[in-house]
Amino acid sequence: MLDQIHLLAAVTVLGVVEQAYFSLQVIYARRAYGISPPKVSGPPDFERLFRAQVNCSEYFPIFLAVVWQAGLFFHQGLAATLGLLYLFFRYRYFVSYKESSLGRLVPMYFSAGILWILLGFAAVGILHFFLSHYVGLNVLLFIRL
Amino acid sequence: MLDQIHLLAAVTVLGVVEQAYFSLQVIYARRAYGISPPKVSGPPDFERLFRAQVNCSEYFPIFLAVVWQAGLFFHQGLAATLGLLYLFFRYRYFVSYKESSLGRLVPMYFSAGILWILLGFAAVGILHFFLSHYVGLNVLLFIRL
Amino acid sequence: MLDQIHLLAAVTVLGVVEQAYFSLQVIYARRAYGISPPKVSGPPDFERLFRAQVNCSEYFPIFLAVVWQAGLFFHQGLAATLGLLYLFFRYRYFVSYKESSLGRLVPMYFSAGILWILLGFAAVGILHFFLSHYVGLNVLLFIRL
Repeated sequence: MLDQIHLLAAVTVLGVVEQAYFSLQVIYARRAYGISPPKVSGPPDFERLFRAQVNCSEYFPIFLAVVWQAGLFFHQGLAATLGLLYLFFRYRYFVSYKESSLGRLVPMYFSAGILWILLGFAAVGILHFFLSHYVGLNVLLFIRL
Repeated sequence: MLDQIHLLAAVTVLGVVEQAYFSLQVIYARRAYGISPPKVSGPPDFERLFRAQVNCSEYFPIFLAVVWQAGLFFHQGLAATLGLLYLFFRYRYFVSYKESSLGRLVPMYFSAGILWILLGFAAVGILHFFLSHYVGLNVLLFIRL
Repeated sequence: MLDQIHLLAAVTVLGVVEQAYFSLQVIYARRAYGISPPKVSGPPDFERLFRAQVNCSEYFPIFLAVVWQAGLFFHQGLAATLGLLYLFFRYRYFVSYKESSLGRLVPMYFSAGILWILLGFAAVGILHFFLSHYVGLNVLLFIRL
C-alpha cells in the first residue's frame, strides 16, 4: 500500500518543513520588531510577513486534501510533481509578500493555478472511479480506441 | 482499497471547491471595499464576510479529520452523506453571516451538530475496532442476538 | 488495512475533541467579556485565550500530517504515543497562555519539539522506503549486522 502514497508522503513532509520555516520567520520578526503575542498588529513590514504566514497556513490543509486525492485517484507522480511546484511558488509568495504587497500577486496566481489543476485531476480521477465502479464504464478504453 | 474511500474523496473535493468559493468571495469583497492585504479590518460588512471565511477555513481540517475516521471505521456512505450535509450548512453559515451576525447562529449550530455526530460515529467505530482487535470481542454479535 | 492506522485514527479523534474544547472556551469567553463576532479584539485576557485557540488550530493540520506519515512509514505505536504527548502539551499551552503570555513558552517548546521528532521519524521512514523501493537497499540489514 505504501508504494501508492510514498511520493505524496514525501511532499507532505516537505510541506511541513516549509510551514515550519514560515513560522520561524514570524517568530524572528516578532523579536526584531518587539511585537509580543498575543499582539498581531505592528508596522506594515511585520503585518505583511504575518499575513503571508497566516495565508500559507490556511491553504496548507486545502493543498494536502487535493494533492492526496489527485495522487490516489489520478496519478501519484504527477500529483507529487505539481505538489513540489506548489511548495516552490508558496515559498516565492512568502518572500515576495515580505518585500511588498504587490510582489505577492504573481506567485499567488501560480500557486492558486496549481491548486485548480490538482483539483481538476482529483475530480477527473474520482469521476472515472465512480463510472467504472458503479456503471462498469471504463473511460480509458474509449481513449485507447 | 480506493472503493473504501471514493465517497470520502468526493466529499473532500467538494469541500475544497466550497473553500475556494469562500476565498473568492473575500477577494471580491476586498476589491469592492478597497481593503488591500495585509489589512483585515474594515466596515462591519467586510469583517463579517472575512470572519465567516476564516471560521470555515479553521474548521475544514477538523471536518476532514472526523469525516474520514467515521468513514473508514464506521460507514463510508453514512459519513459521506453527513459530510454533504455539513458542507450545505457551512454554505448557509457563510451566506447568512454575510448578512448579519445573528443569522450565522442557526447554520452554525447545525454544522457543529453534524461534526459531533461524525465524531461520535468515528469514536464508536474505532472503539469497536479496538475491542475486536485486542480483546477479540465482536460487539456486533451481541446486537444480532 | 485498518490495523495499520487505528492508533493514528484514535489520536486524530482525541485531537478533534481537544480542538472542540478550545473552541468552546473561546465561545464562553466571548459571552463572559461581551465580545460578539466578528470582533476578535478585547481585553488582554480575552486576546490571549483567542490567540491560544488560533495557534492550536493553525498547528492541527501540521500535527496530523506528521503524526500520520511517522505512523505509516516509521512506527504506528511510537507515532501515536508522541501524538498523545503533543496533545497533552497543547492542552498545557492553552491553559498556561490563558493565564499569561510568558506561561505559554515552556509547553510551546515541548509541543514544537515533539513535532520536530515526529517530522524526523517521518523523514527517516520515508527515506528508508525510497532506498528499499528504488535502490533495493535495506538499511535495517546494516543495523542488524
